[in-house]
Amino acid sequence: MQKLIIALGGNAFIQKGQAGTAEEQFANIRKPVASIAELSKRFSIVITHGNGPQSGALLLQQEACDEVPKMPLSIIGAQTQGQMGYMIESTLDEELMRLGISDDKLFLTVLTYTSVKKDDPAFENPTKPVGPAYPDPRPGFVNTSRGWRRVVPSPKPIKIYQWREIKHLMEEGFIIIACGGGGIPVYKKDERLHGVEAVIDKDLATAKLGEQIGADILLIATDVEKVAINFMQPDEKFVDSLTIPEATKFLDEGQFPKGSMGPKVQACVNFIEQGGAQAIITSIDHIQDALLGKTGTHFKK
Amino acid sequence: MQKLIIALGGNAFIQKGQAGTAEEQFANIRKPVASIAELSKRFSIVITHGNGPQSGALLLQQEACDEVPKMPLSIIGAQTQGQMGYMIESTLDEELMRLGISDDKLFLTVLTYTSVKKDDPAFENPTKPVGPAYPDPRPGFVNTSRGWRRVVPSPKPIKIYQWREIKHLMEEGFIIIACGGGGIPVYKKDERLHGVEAVIDKDLATAKLGEQIGADILLIATDVEKVAINFMQPDEKFVDSLTIPEATKFLDEGQFPKGSMGPKVQACVNFIEQGGAQAIITSIDHIQDALLGKTGTHFKK
Repeated sequence: MQKLIIALGGNAFIQKGQAGTAEEQFANIRKPVASIAELSKRFSIVITHGNGPQSGALLLQQEACDEVPKMPLSIIGAQTQGQMGYMIESTLDEELMRLGISDDKLFLTVLTYTSVKKDDPAFENPTKPVGPAYPDPRPGFVNTSRGWRRVVPSPKPIKIYQWREIKHLMEEGFIIIACGGGGIPVYKKDERLHGVEAVIDKDLATAKLGEQIGADILLIATDVEKVAINFMQPDEKFVDSLTIPEATKFLDEGQFPKGSMGPKVQACVNFIEQGGAQAIITSIDHIQDALLGKTGTHFKK
Repeated sequence: MQKLIIALGGNAFIQKGQAGTAEEQFANIRKPVASIAELSKRFSIVITHGNGPQSGALLLQQEACDEVPKMPLSIIGAQTQGQMGYMIESTLDEELMRLGISDDKLFLTVLTYTSVKKDDPAFENPTKPVGPAYPDPRPGFVNTSRGWRRVVPSPKPIKIYQWREIKHLMEEGFIIIACGGGGIPVYKKDERLHGVEAVIDKDLATAKLGEQIGADILLIATDVEKVAINFMQPDEKFVDSLTIPEATKFLDEGQFPKGSMGPKVQACVNFIEQGGAQAIITSIDHIQDALLGKTGTHFKK
């Protein structure tokens, strides 16, 4: 079976205007997870996901409480991997039962850590929005399309530590959930792993994992059906395909916002350049159609 | 290799008098994890762990914050499985490197959910302390040996859902971390899994998992080297071994406090009754010696 790695965007869990209750998150992921359950008949699948709103919520909660010690961002990342892995697993379990294939399919969440360089320039220049958006400016926050959000450094993923486990389990037929929130950022020094205060972009981490496990297809599921050139301008154009030179040129021109479409396009470019066969960006609702070539933006050599 | 299932008590992560910072938790688990790394040369191992203080901290934090939705206990359980799984894994990674066997050993945290009965009488009678202890009484709290603590229902574990995955991976040589906090309590209704507001006793869940995977040895690592009869009384006696009839009699007599030594002894009784070969209760510091028969309380048919 072809290996498919699917990155679920934040809107797979929390939609615009929602507060992000557990009930909302469970209800929202049913749709993409149902697609994935169906696709598991034809593909060997790894699911990855972001954790911006979930880690932001935990950050806000721990800042509001002085009774117990505050945890570093690396632990918060691990907490969201547990939370979201459980949400996806239990929903996947139900969807596989509904399809009558739950006895044939094993699945596992792999807690993931990702190595970064300690001297990555990102640590000097935080760019990754996490947590809820507010209408008013706050210290340490930046103005995003959704409002004012906290930003943290987003260093480049160098290696997903668990790639061997993930590759092995996929080849045994497991559906894998991994790289939650891009993986917990760590660097190794003196045979010790050190967690760092950062959030790795989940799309770049997904492309890296895809490369390491030899995935055939990378699919990034977000809130738009296709990538736009001149987004929100009079000559806006949604494109069916982009060659790597075209995508690279648009990235260089700043066509795609940082911390949003930019890393998604970059992830597709990286994946194809490292030998991946197909990379697709589409919406949560069009995962299956995009894999059939009916929609989405497809990246080509 | 013999299958060994080790339950790590709360003191493996947070010791008396500590606030429970991430640094403290990482430092504390190094000792038991170093023992486990060494034991992995001779045994096929599953590690389980409690999550009382960690889930209690998350509960306190979310109660202090009205900006984002509060999560149910099932999600908090999943968060602690991620947190503590990551702490154990990254420390295990380092200890396996130190022993020069990190290339031979794969390990994984398995997010675990555990089925309970919706009509378990425990839901009417909360008994499981979670979170920090306070000197003063608070509503919904009970007085424990450590002070006033929040209590939640603790229903019986009926089945660990992930037992097949765990058994399979152990047989392939993986060291597994599972059943964190006893597993996320769920019940199945109309092909849906429903999380419930409860915490399953991690020792009873560990015994159940041990039974399901056919473990040979159950070892419960806690803060005492041996089990005491007439604990804290003039005729206190630490015992080297207990037969199942003896242990059952002492349990019936109320020799062991509920929510503390009681479920540990019960877990050993259950494990042996269900076909386990050995069950041991000892301290975190004596894991290796207890397995050599040098110390600990050993349960016998």
